[in-house]
Amino acid sequence: MSDKNRHLLSTRIKSVPKSFIREILKVSNHSDIISFAGGLPNANLFPVDEIAQASAKVLEENGPKALQYSNTEGDVSLRNWIAQRYKDKQGIDVSPDSILITNGSQQAFDLIAKALIDEGDEIVIENPGYLGAIQSFSLYQPKMLTVEVDDNGMNIEQLENVLDNSKPKFVYTVPNFQNPTGISYSQQNREAVAAQIEKHDCLLIQDDPYGELRFSGEEKESFYSLIPERTIMLGTFSKVVVPSFRIGWIVAPEWLMDSLIIAKQASDLHTNYFSQLVMHQYLQDNPVDQHLEKIIGLYSKQREAMISAIEEYFPEGVTVATSDGGMFLWVTLPEGMSSMDLFDDALESKVAFVPGHPFYVGEPQENTLRLSYVTVDSDTIREGIKRLGKCIKNRMS
Amino acid sequence: MSDKNRHLLSTRIKSVPKSFIREILKVSNHSDIISFAGGLPNANLFPVDEIAQASAKVLEENGPKALQYSNTEGDVSLRNWIAQRYKDKQGIDVSPDSILITNGSQQAFDLIAKALIDEGDEIVIENPGYLGAIQSFSLYQPKMLTVEVDDNGMNIEQLENVLDNSKPKFVYTVPNFQNPTGISYSQQNREAVAAQIEKHDCLLIQDDPYGELRFSGEEKESFYSLIPERTIMLGTFSKVVVPSFRIGWIVAPEWLMDSLIIAKQASDLHTNYFSQLVMHQYLQDNPVDQHLEKIIGLYSKQREAMISAIEEYFPEGVTVATSDGGMFLWVTLPEGMSSMDLFDDALESKVAFVPGHPFYVGEPQENTLRLSYVTVDSDTIREGIKRLGKCIKNRMS
Repeated sequence: MSDKNRHLLSTRIKSVPKSFIREILKVSNHSDIISFAGGLPNANLFPVDEIAQASAKVLEENGPKALQYSNTEGDVSLRNWIAQRYKDKQGIDVSPDSILITNGSQQAFDLIAKALIDEGDEIVIENPGYLGAIQSFSLYQPKMLTVEVDDNGMNIEQLENVLDNSKPKFVYTVPNFQNPTGISYSQQNREAVAAQIEKHDCLLIQDDPYGELRFSGEEKESFYSLIPERTIMLGTFSKVVVPSFRIGWIVAPEWLMDSLIIAKQASDLHTNYFSQLVMHQYLQDNPVDQHLEKIIGLYSKQREAMISAIEEYFPEGVTVATSDGGMFLWVTLPEGMSSMDLFDDALESKVAFVPGHPFYVGEPQENTLRLSYVTVDSDTIREGIKRLGKCIKNRMS
Repeated sequence: MSDKNRHLLSTRIKSVPKSFIREILKVSNHSDIISFAGGLPNANLFPVDEIAQASAKVLEENGPKALQYSNTEGDVSLRNWIAQRYKDKQGIDVSPDSILITNGSQQAFDLIAKALIDEGDEIVIENPGYLGAIQSFSLYQPKMLTVEVDDNGMNIEQLENVLDNSKPKFVYTVPNFQNPTGISYSQQNREAVAAQIEKHDCLLIQDDPYGELRFSGEEKESFYSLIPERTIMLGTFSKVVVPSFRIGWIVAPEWLMDSLIIAKQASDLHTNYFSQLVMHQYLQDNPVDQHLEKIIGLYSKQREAMISAIEEYFPEGVTVATSDGGMFLWVTLPEGMSSMDLFDDALESKVAFVPGHPFYVGEPQENTLRLSYVTVDSDTIREGIKRLGKCIKNRMS
């Protein structure tokens, strides 16, 4: 028996869209290629020594307890820290009991889907939107409805239209420095989205991996402030501290939390407890805001380098979405130019990006692409953008 | 909005059996109670210093790379180590490419279910069987068929009957020192099970968390030796090294592995990479067999203490299932005596166990219970069994 056993596979697994980003990352991973394709944070800023100190301290102070099984909800000190952070940074009151520690926010998608989605249920996602969420939700075979996002946030007319004609379990949003577009929802847009959620008696997921990486502009209000009982918040330490620990969290209302805990228990009992303790120790011993300043300093400098290089080397007719932070710029090429074709040209010129295609559910907008500025230094960014500009110009002529 | 939102919950999450073990563990967790209820390994044996050394070394040698995102399949050195271990201990050839690192073997259930189970699909599980697996599979709404296990393994007649009358995706087994019963499948039983699997063109899951904890008797053949292309093997470091890292694995045939990787990626991208490196470093620097000897030495001594106390203090008519290793003894009370009732008596006498009830799918055998001997020292075991014996005698008279 071998491939003939493929008939044993579930319909659900066959319904997951193939991640062709993985393929892109493979070809763009060679050292002689200037890659704007990645979605990883800059490892040069990881607090290696501080994590080493925190690890040693955790084992010294907790002994074998740090290595035993633990509770499903997650370490209570870490949940207290997260609750306090919401209070300090956003003025939001979140109870530690309403926080569940997950394996990165990627697992949050899976647990929420387990608790809320039956086959054929409707959900609403941003278009373009975060691939990881789309992939995770699709395993539970929902009907995905889409609402476009632009520089201001969600298209409210479309949202209203979708909600008038469906009964979705939730609307999934990344309102701060969205992946892939880098855009944020304006204050006005948030209020309008919140009003629609209220009106249609619906839930909203606010995924927020990049919210702490603000370079400019003013902090906007959390959906949790606007519609607390209808908002599920996701968070992660992956972009702020380190990703390899896979520590994220869900903030959820009480009626949902019990089900999320059951889902988490069934999925993997609990998140790596040793790493939860190390993360908490790190956060206690090191001022995270100082660390954030370093990240923001580097990323914003490199973003500036990218924007100014784009202004210099990209031809007229190419636009970049407005962004005040995060990790990505979203580029729209002249009408009719395919970023998939451009990708092949670019690779020949030893520069890589992610075509917009995979971020769309349904018909993609073919002339879009995503650039990451976080892992490449400013000089290399200039060189890469110069090469890319040449490729675009060649296609135009 | 509040509890009225419970209608938003999925049917799937409502179909998960409530874990009343959690409740039992809560009440039996007080320090004045002698608890045989737990399912945790003995933390006194955890290699705290060695893990501290491995953690420091990993960060020193790998730097920020140890803290970055990693691949979905898992660290290749760790997968090589696991493959080599199968070769050394069981004479089995497993390719590292056929190994996927998971968050404990609990996550293996979830990923396998994602890849194989659609709602209403049939699966076969042991009765009584491992609760964690039952809970995890049930989220995918299969039809669960059961086959009884006894001192020799699976009831072959029942298995044949079930397979004749259904088309299950897989048969789930814990052939070595099963949880909850402690029994192992005999060599003859394995061959008979394998023949049924072949005959009915089916898959078999061999879950093996306790296989390395053998105190007596001879190692039996792995199903992987008997029916390699039909066997999915699960493993974990939780009982052999430490549980808090949540590191387990799946060995699966190629046609299934692609789907498992997609499922893993959608679930949480990858398992904590730092901890994978620390685990591998620990395994490189410390002879795991010496560590196992310590565990086996302590557990087998405590099991002896429990068995001899049972012989002394339990009345005639109480039987204990044959076991050569692992963490549990399975007790059958006289016909008609409910272990749920006994549990209340026992708690008053400050001793706790897990009634057999929750391990059954369908009608439970009410007069069964599970005792763990691993976390309580020999003298305390004697005292606890003495109290429990008194409670049983009181119920008999």
